[in-house]
Amino acid sequence: MPDLESMFHPKSVAVVGASPRPLAPSNLHFMYPLLAYGYPGKIYPVHPKADKIHGLPAYRSILDIAEPVDYVISAIPATQVPRLMRDCAAAGVKTVTVFTSGFSEVGTPAGARLEKEIADIARRGGIRLVGPNCLGLHCPAGGLSLDFNIPRDSGHVGFLAQSGGNACEIVGAAAERGMFISKGVSFGNAALLNECDFLEYLAADADTEVIAAYIEGPKQPARLLRALRAGVRAKPVVMLKGGVTEAGAGVVTSHTGAMAGSSQVWDTLCRQTGVVPVHHFEELIDTLAAFVYLKPPRGRRVGIIGVGGGASVLAADQCAGAGLEVPPLPEEIRRSIQEYTPPVGVGLRNPLDLDTAGFMDAALAARTVGTVAGWDGVDFVVLAVLPGILLAHSHHQVLAGHVEALAKVAREAGKPLAVVLRTAGIFRSEQAAQGIQADFQKAGFPVFRSVDGAARAVAHLIARREAGRRAMPPPRSRMV
Amino acid sequence: MPDLESMFHPKSVAVVGASPRPLAPSNLHFMYPLLAYGYPGKIYPVHPKADKIHGLPAYRSILDIAEPVDYVISAIPATQVPRLMRDCAAAGVKTVTVFTSGFSEVGTPAGARLEKEIADIARRGGIRLVGPNCLGLHCPAGGLSLDFNIPRDSGHVGFLAQSGGNACEIVGAAAERGMFISKGVSFGNAALLNECDFLEYLAADADTEVIAAYIEGPKQPARLLRALRAGVRAKPVVMLKGGVTEAGAGVVTSHTGAMAGSSQVWDTLCRQTGVVPVHHFEELIDTLAAFVYLKPPRGRRVGIIGVGGGASVLAADQCAGAGLEVPPLPEEIRRSIQEYTPPVGVGLRNPLDLDTAGFMDAALAARTVGTVAGWDGVDFVVLAVLPGILLAHSHHQVLAGHVEALAKVAREAGKPLAVVLRTAGIFRSEQAAQGIQADFQKAGFPVFRSVDGAARAVAHLIARREAGRRAMPPPRSRMV
Repeated sequence: MPDLESMFHPKSVAVVGASPRPLAPSNLHFMYPLLAYGYPGKIYPVHPKADKIHGLPAYRSILDIAEPVDYVISAIPATQVPRLMRDCAAAGVKTVTVFTSGFSEVGTPAGARLEKEIADIARRGGIRLVGPNCLGLHCPAGGLSLDFNIPRDSGHVGFLAQSGGNACEIVGAAAERGMFISKGVSFGNAALLNECDFLEYLAADADTEVIAAYIEGPKQPARLLRALRAGVRAKPVVMLKGGVTEAGAGVVTSHTGAMAGSSQVWDTLCRQTGVVPVHHFEELIDTLAAFVYLKPPRGRRVGIIGVGGGASVLAADQCAGAGLEVPPLPEEIRRSIQEYTPPVGVGLRNPLDLDTAGFMDAALAARTVGTVAGWDGVDFVVLAVLPGILLAHSHHQVLAGHVEALAKVAREAGKPLAVVLRTAGIFRSEQAAQGIQADFQKAGFPVFRSVDGAARAVAHLIARREAGRRAMPPPRSRMV
Repeated sequence: MPDLESMFHPKSVAVVGASPRPLAPSNLHFMYPLLAYGYPGKIYPVHPKADKIHGLPAYRSILDIAEPVDYVISAIPATQVPRLMRDCAAAGVKTVTVFTSGFSEVGTPAGARLEKEIADIARRGGIRLVGPNCLGLHCPAGGLSLDFNIPRDSGHVGFLAQSGGNACEIVGAAAERGMFISKGVSFGNAALLNECDFLEYLAADADTEVIAAYIEGPKQPARLLRALRAGVRAKPVVMLKGGVTEAGAGVVTSHTGAMAGSSQVWDTLCRQTGVVPVHHFEELIDTLAAFVYLKPPRGRRVGIIGVGGGASVLAADQCAGAGLEVPPLPEEIRRSIQEYTPPVGVGLRNPLDLDTAGFMDAALAARTVGTVAGWDGVDFVVLAVLPGILLAHSHHQVLAGHVEALAKVAREAGKPLAVVLRTAGIFRSEQAAQGIQADFQKAGFPVFRSVDGAARAVAHLIARREAGRRAMPPPRSRMV
């Protein structure tokens, strides 16, 4: 494994192809975050004519920069990249991200030749080449970001993604769920450094507790198998594979020049290595949330508390469909809840239907969650709230007061609790959910948008525990 | 089939259990919508003590009302309902919705007896009984609504739902997608009128073009089979079945007192009748959108236009996974698009990756959509936009100008077009999507949140066409 730690904390960065045009991709992806996100080192724009770019002195070439340059980003046309690489080798540059596309992914012999040429120059010159056809390195703590408009907070999720767009979406969608990034990389065609290098690095990285991977086609399948095995022993690796159908695999070739491999091969790989396989972007984010927030439940038995009879039926179906168990509520628990709940509307079963009125009473809701969480027949609890219904009853502000009470009883019971805010795609429900979601997340509970999503994510968490792998990430990001 | 048409347009309504408490369920579900949603008839609150409720004279009993009462809603305790039913029979009331719960769903012999008693009174008295344990009738054109805080617009989607909560969510989620309700019913325990009555009625109803059904357990399975067969011949019936797992079936019994039946039985029923089976609430709404907005495509070949390489890979995987075909872009189409698109960033394949810059140019985007839609190798088109990315580039306002241009070329090509606004659960992307979504829907295009959701919904539409059933709903709600 090359030393990648210094790569995520370069002392100086040159952006070759920096542009005076405000909306140039080289600005949106590189210059703006470098300028605004606290990058501590020196920044050198390189431009064939401009003297200044964004107030910084611009250089004609890497070779014109007097000080050593640690990291170079290439945002110039593909045919000019070999020359740049040679300059970088001459200047002792340690890392180059080639944002430029137009290499093996175009499918022409010329593109493939060009890619081989820059990889050879990098290898000979001792340069760590990221890409080409990628957004490169993301490390909020080091002031590096894939884009100007994605969250810049630091956290403990590491990612490797063959697609820059998917990488940016991982950062954005994770942040919405209160999860932030340690280090990540968009590595495109992987001409030199590939998925194995980044996986090995993140598996060993002390800042990273969970790894998210979006891979289209592996460059070194045998090494990947070993890297995944080792990585999974250290921490959870959640993988979304692109190109699992013939149609998708065809697109992969023209996207990153890779060979996708069959769906069966990937399923086998996941089973053999213990990688958590996910099939949609939403499932990837849900699963990360389960791993980041929750202790693994001791078993598959779930207690569900919600609002609505039909919603309870579907919640039970979805949990059972995800391989969880929904045990019936025993008579003594029913009786103890019956003592203090209104006689009408509350459904005393599992899922327990608190009815809107019951749920609106924070003390009653918390007591019920405490009772269900304390019941030794369940291993974890799902609290499914319908902000739409609550909103409809002009009561959504009340919910904020619930979070503290619910957090307290859930902590006391010592069982993992997942919160579901079902918005049914209704925008004003989404609006109503925002504050509650942030409050729950701050209190240490993951928030999902569907019982189905929560159930599948928790099932992945349980499967990892059942497989006997190191089940618990370090405690700092786990609050419940 | 009983005459249900007059039921949805009662000349007068009495709410028994109307309450002076502002947040009483009888107000939120019944009094407020009756007062505010344009109900044209007379409204009689019935209350044991109050003289006036919401400014209307209150009555002690149905029998105290001098004029004939068409429709009675019961929001009083279960033990008082038999007496009310007898009064209704004596007063010649035509329809009673029993909102009250506490009947067969509680699982006691007393509850079952009480339910049988009210059904018997209704049968003998010629009363159409809806429920018990339900929200009853929804007919925006007649001023009837299940709740005060759900959209009240009229449209052409009919629904029958055994759960009141799920019924309200159907109304709310459909409205968000620009789809509105003709007539619907939440029918709970179905003690007298059941799923068959409502299905037969909606199948014959001229205002209804598509039927959504949420069923937990059928009361008359043999009749349901016939009703579904006949219904499906007339119009699409999209069904979400609650209680398809053992855990869910257990909840069904305590929710509506019904027997859920096995998952296999339901799968067989759907295959035999041509019902469109869906497995999640989101899939129900997506599928309704496909049926409401789109002409059925002539085949399974989809042309996808989007933004992002990794997103293209996943889009192809998801379409193929839903049983659609993603044919490769032929050389002549590639060449014709290449003529006017920038050389870098655009991926000339299917899915066609327009790149953010390419997409931001409305004329270029429209021309490309026109070219792909005009290509005789595809039967329909999916346009997958990432409002998050566009928003990130401070350009989302620009998109509004796209809708008109895109609508024009899609109409000219004469092929169905589905729009996907992928927000990845990011709230500011949801905000950015709102205006664009409304514009697209107004222009006649269904809007989905994932390629997966769009693909599965369109696959259902195609399956109905392939099965040779009446493929096209009447033209008024189909704009493309």
